[in-house]
Amino acid sequence: MTKASSRPLGEHRIIEIIQNNLTIMPQISVGFGDDVSAIKIGEKHVAVLKTDMLVAKTDVPKQMSLKQAARKAVIMNISDFASKGVQPTAVLVALGLPKGFTEKDVQAIAEGLDTGAQEYGAYVVGGDTSETQDLIISIMLYGISEKPKLMLRTGAQPGDILAVTGFFGNQSAGLKLLLKDCIAPEELRKKLLDSVFMPKARLAEGLKLSESGAASASMDSSDGLAWSLHELARLSNVGFLLESIPVASETVEFAKINNLDSSELALYGGEEYELVLTIKPGKWESAQTAVKKAGGQLIRIGKATKEKKVLININGKKQQVQSRGWEHFKSQL
Amino acid sequence: MTKASSRPLGEHRIIEIIQNNLTIMPQISVGFGDDVSAIKIGEKHVAVLKTDMLVAKTDVPKQMSLKQAARKAVIMNISDFASKGVQPTAVLVALGLPKGFTEKDVQAIAEGLDTGAQEYGAYVVGGDTSETQDLIISIMLYGISEKPKLMLRTGAQPGDILAVTGFFGNQSAGLKLLLKDCIAPEELRKKLLDSVFMPKARLAEGLKLSESGAASASMDSSDGLAWSLHELARLSNVGFLLESIPVASETVEFAKINNLDSSELALYGGEEYELVLTIKPGKWESAQTAVKKAGGQLIRIGKATKEKKVLININGKKQQVQSRGWEHFKSQL
Repeated sequence: MTKASSRPLGEHRIIEIIQNNLTIMPQISVGFGDDVSAIKIGEKHVAVLKTDMLVAKTDVPKQMSLKQAARKAVIMNISDFASKGVQPTAVLVALGLPKGFTEKDVQAIAEGLDTGAQEYGAYVVGGDTSETQDLIISIMLYGISEKPKLMLRTGAQPGDILAVTGFFGNQSAGLKLLLKDCIAPEELRKKLLDSVFMPKARLAEGLKLSESGAASASMDSSDGLAWSLHELARLSNVGFLLESIPVASETVEFAKINNLDSSELALYGGEEYELVLTIKPGKWESAQTAVKKAGGQLIRIGKATKEKKVLININGKKQQVQSRGWEHFKSQL
Repeated sequence: MTKASSRPLGEHRIIEIIQNNLTIMPQISVGFGDDVSAIKIGEKHVAVLKTDMLVAKTDVPKQMSLKQAARKAVIMNISDFASKGVQPTAVLVALGLPKGFTEKDVQAIAEGLDTGAQEYGAYVVGGDTSETQDLIISIMLYGISEKPKLMLRTGAQPGDILAVTGFFGNQSAGLKLLLKDCIAPEELRKKLLDSVFMPKARLAEGLKLSESGAASASMDSSDGLAWSLHELARLSNVGFLLESIPVASETVEFAKINNLDSSELALYGGEEYELVLTIKPGKWESAQTAVKKAGGQLIRIGKATKEKKVLININGKKQQVQSRGWEHFKSQL
């Protein structure tokens, strides 16, 4: 194979190049540019599909077990389904194993895959395996939905309420604990590491929100909160004005101890699995009720605006939220 | 991550361990152990799913272009759909790119993906990208079929006719040309390399055969002819008696020049994309007509037997066909 000179390409630029060179499926329901793809089945339904790979070198801190890594590979795909409000039915896995992996290692991976799927009501139904230099767990998800129930990235309107399903920063704090010279007392340490090792997808919240019809747009936050806001803004052709940054209390504590900026951790950390949504103004209460039914919480953090910028109101002064996030190619573990 | 001592695991043993550690989906239509997975949709239909990854180090000879490699990643998955008689609708890709890949490289990959999909009437509809050490192209395929039309690995009966859709050996001959000290005159060389660089999936043949209802079992031959025969035998609980080995004429010529055994190349070479089928005895003519309609050929090579062995009749003497093939973990490029 030919390989030309080194020029760093970001994940998003790569997707853009690929998209520009493809023949577009006629009458596709959802293609590139959203969290999932969707293909029409009959008049009312769509098959919802997603694939994303976990790569040990960039996605798995070395303190994480193989079982946790395999579970995470499933969760990061389910999070995309969660953000669209779609129940995943089936999981398939293309597994790349380095030489020297034992039967016990493979068993741990199988257990992690099964655990991740079963936690969210899905089943692992097939797969294939290859030899790779680094551990690679490529997951595909399949589910069925009704087209109008899909919460896409494109529907936000000026005036809609901007909301998230949880507080941010614990993943980045946890990663800093694992990779940098940071400290935390035992209990805090446990919580932060747990958010890295055992991430949760907001599937119940996504499903209830989809049923409620209250959300105008939605995406997950696996590339970071700031990045998600910019993506939602761009694809919905709106801007956002944030009234507050949803920083997790553990992140605030961790930042204090380590002399870090907690807002920075919450906005630009990445690899979190909360949903970032816009809610139609008259539907705020039904959205809240829906998420409560799922055992979750809906936190209002701002509004969609006509002005196509992502701004935050700090002490009466509007500042720009930067368009950067957890882009794997650039944010190496 | 913990990694225990080195013990080589084959592809098939790995799948077995994974399968043994999974919760089985109730009422699944087709799970592990066949070329694809299938999930019920409504009363009559199934969603058909497949994922498999191409790994540059083991699947891509270095003389192959990036566009050809990406196309091959799609073809090897479509071949599995072909063997079940299912039209692929959508292709998703999880792309693992090493550092230093340029925009031009990514464009070549996109073109290869698109070409592979378009040749078989499918569309690339989504994907994601990560950074990996080696180039990895993990493909997922989706399509819809009617459950009874799926040609599974499990239906062969003693007395059924064993058949293939083409002659074998050119892939292994081509690989030997690329990797070993072998020679071939220009025209032969071109043909053999073409079979490596531009493999074809027998989709038209598979679709017509599925419509005809003449096949009792089917699988593709990407792990080699001998391996496929043993798999079909095991899963259908029959044996096979081969009357002949379907060796490609180019392979015969190549073997002569290089003093190799052409039967060995045809039986144990692997990475070929012909279909290996059993045909119900009364349906041989309709099977042949079906494949001819698709522009292909159906070659009778033997019969399914009660005796659960895979044997070949050579000059009136029965010999065992070995249960080995192209297992990537063991047959490194």
